[in-house]
Parts: sequence; C-alpha cells; structure tokens
Amino acid sequence: MPALDSTNDLYAEMRGIGAAARRAAALMAQAPAERKTAALQAAAAEIRARRQEILAANAQDLAEAGQHGLSPAMVDRLMLDDKRIDAMAAGLDDVAALPDPVGKVLARWTRPNGLEIARVSVPLGVIGIIYESRPNVTADAGGLSLRAGNAAILRGGSESFHSSRAIAAAVRRGLEQAGLPANAVQLVPTRDRAAVGMMLTLTEFIDIIVPRGGRSLIERVQRESRMPVIAHLEGVCHVYVDRAAELDKARRIVVNAKMRRTGVCGAAETLLVDRAVAQQYLPPILADLHGAGCEIRGDAAVQALDAQAVPASEADWSAEYLDAILAVGIVDGVDAAIEHINRYGSHHTDAIVTEDKATAERFLAEVDSAIVLQNASTQFADGGEFGMGAEIGISTGRLPPRGPVGAEQLVSYKYVVRGNGQVRP
Amino acid sequence: MPALDSTNDLYAEMRGIGAAARRAAALMAQAPAERKTAALQAAAAEIRARRQEILAANAQDLAEAGQHGLSPAMVDRLMLDDKRIDAMAAGLDDVAALPDPVGKVLARWTRPNGLEIARVSVPLGVIGIIYESRPNVTADAGGLSLRAGNAAILRGGSESFHSSRAIAAAVRRGLEQAGLPANAVQLVPTRDRAAVGMMLTLTEFIDIIVPRGGRSLIERVQRESRMPVIAHLEGVCHVYVDRAAELDKARRIVVNAKMRRTGVCGAAETLLVDRAVAQQYLPPILADLHGAGCEIRGDAAVQALDAQAVPASEADWSAEYLDAILAVGIVDGVDAAIEHINRYGSHHTDAIVTEDKATAERFLAEVDSAIVLQNASTQFADGGEFGMGAEIGISTGRLPPRGPVGAEQLVSYKYVVRGNGQVRP
Repeated sequence: MPALDSTNDLYAEMRGIGAAARRAAALMAQAPAERKTAALQAAAAEIRARRQEILAANAQDLAEAGQHGLSPAMVDRLMLDDKRIDAMAAGLDDVAALPDPVGKVLARWTRPNGLEIARVSVPLGVIGIIYESRPNVTADAGGLSLRAGNAAILRGGSESFHSSRAIAAAVRRGLEQAGLPANAVQLVPTRDRAAVGMMLTLTEFIDIIVPRGGRSLIERVQRESRMPVIAHLEGVCHVYVDRAAELDKARRIVVNAKMRRTGVCGAAETLLVDRAVAQQYLPPILADLHGAGCEIRGDAAVQALDAQAVPASEADWSAEYLDAILAVGIVDGVDAAIEHINRYGSHHTDAIVTEDKATAERFLAEVDSAIVLQNASTQFADGGEFGMGAEIGISTGRLPPRGPVGAEQLVSYKYVVRGNGQVRP
Repeated sequence: MPALDSTNDLYAEMRGIGAAARRAAALMAQAPAERKTAALQAAAAEIRARRQEILAANAQDLAEAGQHGLSPAMVDRLMLDDKRIDAMAAGLDDVAALPDPVGKVLARWTRPNGLEIARVSVPLGVIGIIYESRPNVTADAGGLSLRAGNAAILRGGSESFHSSRAIAAAVRRGLEQAGLPANAVQLVPTRDRAAVGMMLTLTEFIDIIVPRGGRSLIERVQRESRMPVIAHLEGVCHVYVDRAAELDKARRIVVNAKMRRTGVCGAAETLLVDRAVAQQYLPPILADLHGAGCEIRGDAAVQALDAQAVPASEADWSAEYLDAILAVGIVDGVDAAIEHINRYGSHHTDAIVTEDKATAERFLAEVDSAIVLQNASTQFADGGEFGMGAEIGISTGRLPPRGPVGAEQLVSYKYVVRGNGQVRP
C-alpha cells in the first residue's frame, strides 16, 4: 500500500518538524533582543548576498507556472526581480529595527498579602503559517515570527515552492549566524497538500495557525484547525460622506479608498452618502470615479443622479469586489450609515468624512470594526502604514489580536508572582 | 414529526436569543461606566431582596436532585443558603467597584503623515457561557460580562435550572433599573441538551464561547465550537523545592498548595525536590503531608525515603488528581525541574521555593505556564486572589486572555484613526 505508506511517512515528517519547532521555540523564548535583531539583519544580508540563487529558484517556479498555465496576475505575484528582493531584505531590516515585544511588563501590582504580581509579555510559541503564492511572505512572516521570539512552520503555496525554499534557507542562515536555532523558521519541504491538513491537527506542537490567502483557504483552516486561528477574512470596507464633510476631502478620499489599488483588503467596496448632501456631493464624486474607470452600482436615488449607474442588488451591499466596482447608497445621516455598515460590512475598516466632531465620535465609537477612520482613506489599513514595520495580515476576529498583526501582536503574556512564603488562608 | 418540529422550534428560539443578545451588545458597548456600575449594584440589591424566591427555586432543584440521586458533592455544589446568597450579592458589588475596562486608550501614536492612531479597548460582543452545576456562576459570569459591556448568553447546568433562572431574573431587573437592556444577560430557558450544540454554531450572534466545567464539557466545546473558545483545561500544578529553599517555607507552601483544597484547579498535583536537599527536606515535608491525610506516590528515590510512599507510574506525572494524592519526584536541580514541568504539566500554575534569585528568575522565565510563582502557594491561582474581583475561569490557552479571566480580560480593542484628509500614496 504505497499511498498509506507515503501518508505515514509524511505524518512522521510533519511531527518531526513540529517537535523541532517546539525545541526551537523554547530557545527563542529566552533569546535576548540583540540576538534576534542580529539574526534579522543577517537574514537580510543573506537574502541580498544570495540574490542569484533566489532568482534561479524563482525562474524554476516561473517555468513550472508556465507549464501549468497560471494566470498573468498569479505569475505577477510569483515573480521576483532585483527590486522585490531588495524590498524583502529591507523589510527584514525594518523588522530588525522594531522594539522587541517580549519581556515587557504590561502591568504590575502588589496585593495586600505582599504578593507582587506582574503580567509579562512572552512569545506565542509555535506558529503555523499557511499562505499562497507570494514568495515574499516567507521572509515577512518568518521575520515577524522571529522578532517576537516564536518558531514558525511555514507552508507556502506550491507555485512558489522553489523560491520560498531559497528564501527560507537565507533566513535560517541568518538565525545560525546569530547563534539561534535555524529551526525557528522551517518551511514544509513538500508540496503534498495533505501536509496542510496535518498541520491543522498537530496540537501538540503548533499553538496558533495563521492562514493568509483567499476565502476558501481561510474557511478551510477555520473549519479544520484544532488550534486558535488568527484569520483575515474579507474586507467589505465603507466610506461614509456626511453632511458636514468638506467636498474636496470627500472626493480625494473616496477615489483613493476605491481606486488606489482595487485588489487590497482595505479598498472601499461601498460608498454611503448622507441624503442631506447627496444632490450636491454625489455628482462630482461619481464623476471622479467614472473618470478613474470605476463602475457604479447604485440604489434608485443614486441612479436618479447618475445615468451611468447600474442597479445595485441586495448582494452588492455585502460584496467584496476587489475590482473597479463600487456600490453606492444614500442614507439618512450618520445613524443610518452606522446601521448599514454594522449590518452589511465585514468589521474590517470603515471611514467617515466629516468636519463635525460629535458626528465623527459617534461613528468611530459605534461602527464595530477593527479599524475606523475619520477623514482618511481606508487604504491605510496596513501594518506598514500603522508603523508596525510589516504585518502578517489584518485580523478580522473579535478577540485580540484584532486589526493589523505585526510582531507586537504575535505575543501572549504570563503572570509572574513573587512572594516570601505566602500561603492561601 | 414532533421531534423535528421541536428541534426547529428550539433552533428558532436560540436564534431569537442570539439576535436579542446582539442588539443588547450594541447598546451595552456604548453604555457609560456609571450605568453599568449602577446595574451591578442594583443586581446585588435584587439578589438580596429576592432571597426567598431564590431559596425556593433552589429547593426545587434540590428536590429534583434527590429524585435523580445526585452525589453528595454535587448536591453541595448546588445548594444555596443565606451565606452563599450574601456572597453572590457581595461578588456583584465587588465587580461593580472594579474599574471599567472599556474605552481605555491602550496605545496612541502619530504617523509622519499626521494620522493619529489610537488602540482603544472595546467589549468582546456576545459571550456564550456554558457551565455546570454551581448556580452562583450565573451571577458571577453575568456580572463580569456586564462590567465589560458585553451581552451574555448563559447556559447553566440542568441541575441548577430553577436557581439559575431566579438569579438571572434578579440580574436582569438590575439592568432594567439602570436603564440598560435586560437582554444583556439571558439564560437559555430550556434544559434541552440540543441547545448547547446550537450555541456552538450560532456564529452570526455569538462571538466567544466560554465553557466552565469538567474535562468532557471543555473537550466537546473545543471540538464543536465554530467560534473562539476561552477554555480552562486541567491544572497539573507543580511545586519545586530547590536546594536554596528555606525548609520552613517549603513545608508551609507544599502542604497549603496540596491540601488547602484538593478539588481546585490551582491545587498542586506534583512535588519535585532538588536531589541536593532531598535527604534532608523530604522526610519532614512528607511527614506533614501524611499528617494531613495525603497519599504519596513516589519514584524509587522517594520510596527509599518514605516507607508509606506508593510507587508512581508514568501516568502519575501528568495526573490531575483533584484529591488528597501527590506525585513526588526527585530531580537534579532547577533545569531538570523546568524540563519536567514543561513536559508533564498543563501550563497552568507552577511554583518554585528558593531563596536564590538567579535560580528563581530562571524558573519564572523558563516554565511555560500561565502563572509562575516564587515562594508562594499554587492555590493563589484565582482571579479574586489576583485582585480581579472575580473570575470567569483560568484560561490555559496560549493566546490572550491567558490565566485568570476577569472583567478586564473580557474586552478586545479597535483602532481609531483620525486624519485631516490623508490619502495613501
């Protein structure tokens, strides 16, 4: 039974990777900040130094992609060049420059009986990261995990297999050069899809699963994982233009939020405009959008103002187009906007344009999303733009970490209690 | 098909409860601190005022328990008297006195482009709490949830059904008196076991599940829940007596950690003693334990020092006895103790007895548990003892909340970003 044998072999191999990660995590948890910084800098240097090796591996991936008839968009995601390699190395240097999130005293107090209690940040442990085609995630995710003192088991997309292997090798050399365990960053060394299912059940060795990719991957991981999942579901992001908005700001923000890049999770998918100013504000805003090549799907009131608008169906209000399409609705003020967003949105990122402080505070407090903005584009929903150096994703879960997940979010805490012989009465 | 009809009816009822909780959660999230404080105080007053009602409901539960032949321990857990009712009301007053954990600015910074970013604490949303026989959990869990601005759906044990209903009614009257929605605390109004399974899949309405009870309940919830679970697994807690321990402290701490109450999760289950002092320290420590009625299960070295010791099997090192039994082992110093605890323990609560600062720091840093103590009893593993007023449990998960879960841990956060027209380049 060769199939069963090979499944058993793979399972044994995955357990071996898990056990090695667990051992590495114990060492990483005690590693001083400077050593982790040195490892990240060495990894960046290795990526620059091994540029030719990485490009050759990428060429192999691209050749295979050609044979499998990958779409041009997929090929673009997969492709590495000098600029992308430099960006990957610079990203690791940025993460090296971040403050170490481990060992911070988050709170400290003394009890009446003299016990001194401190809540201290500690690494999460072993993180399983499952992602799709972009090979740079191997460096980004490995680097963030390393900064926070974790061990990562990386399962990249099968299209980027060779590239990811070359990048992971560079990061591992960086770890070794700094005297840290190379196994703090491991790449699953097979394209066998069964490995993903095994990762999701290795509760003994993996503490947290982070999926990064399309909806079907995330949903599969949420369904099958036996560990907690830090998941990034869809971004159905809104811009609400209030009666107290400055029109110029509204025009700039709406076009940027929708059209700067349509394929990112922070791209706006719905525009809501206050009925009080719709007649005045909507025509110039929609003209900008049409001018930028955006399709408008509107309710009846919008269609009355815009001959080019397509009728919006109920499904449009919760659609994540990731394309040059925008659903546009007219609402009765901020309360109706909040209600619409909390009902149809995905609790990711939503913005209000207004100069009225009370209206803004209302929106910022009552819209139940990971990120809420006043007078700024939803496309700022990004760990780099938040100053986190990089991000492993934007968590749409309710429990922390919520929103952009950088190194500072890849930690947990423990309670350290110091006494002098106290016993409990 | 009456069975199918009744399942459909129950499902519709559970969805109705979920939708009501979601509406209440939106109101609770915006409730000012003083109003939540007033609701908690009013709930405490209602519990005192409705004492006879609650006792009558409890008598009904006790009568049914008699018919079902519940064990004396179960009956004791179920039973309410004046003292327990006073304690329940006092617990709500304690929670009322806690600082409000919502709306705290956890971090705040400004980006070079002028965006002002704040990380602000917000309620979790709707919490489903599934627990077993103790009726006081209805007040404790409902109160903590309320303090943190959440809505709770409580599913109590079927044995305590009438008592929990009377207690929940008192808490709901407290909410109403303070002008808050009564549906911020709802009790599932049926003993039908199918309701639990339904709660675990109501992802549209419930954000977090908190199981509180025995291992089989927790495991079922972890297996079936489609939402994140804040779970309290077992407490295989250790005391390690180091060569630099003061014998008197060690004796007091070991006996207290094991015998103060054997049925609590913070009770010590394994004692490890440094080989360097075993000959000198173990006999008096074991004499204390025997004197307190504790059975000793030891390795060969322990048996050589204690004629009464029973041989320990491999299973004893990871056993949660919750009884007057202690596994005792001799280890080669703090490193071996750390290795043993991380291997066999449950990452709950572990203590070292030592006067050596370096050894203590080593243990506190490297033992990978939610709570680590120096020179204090493991029985301090308790939200009340930590100064949290009360606790909904002790989380043994890796992600926050880890350790005792009080009101301050039943919140999440969001990012509030204020701009003046910024768009992303």
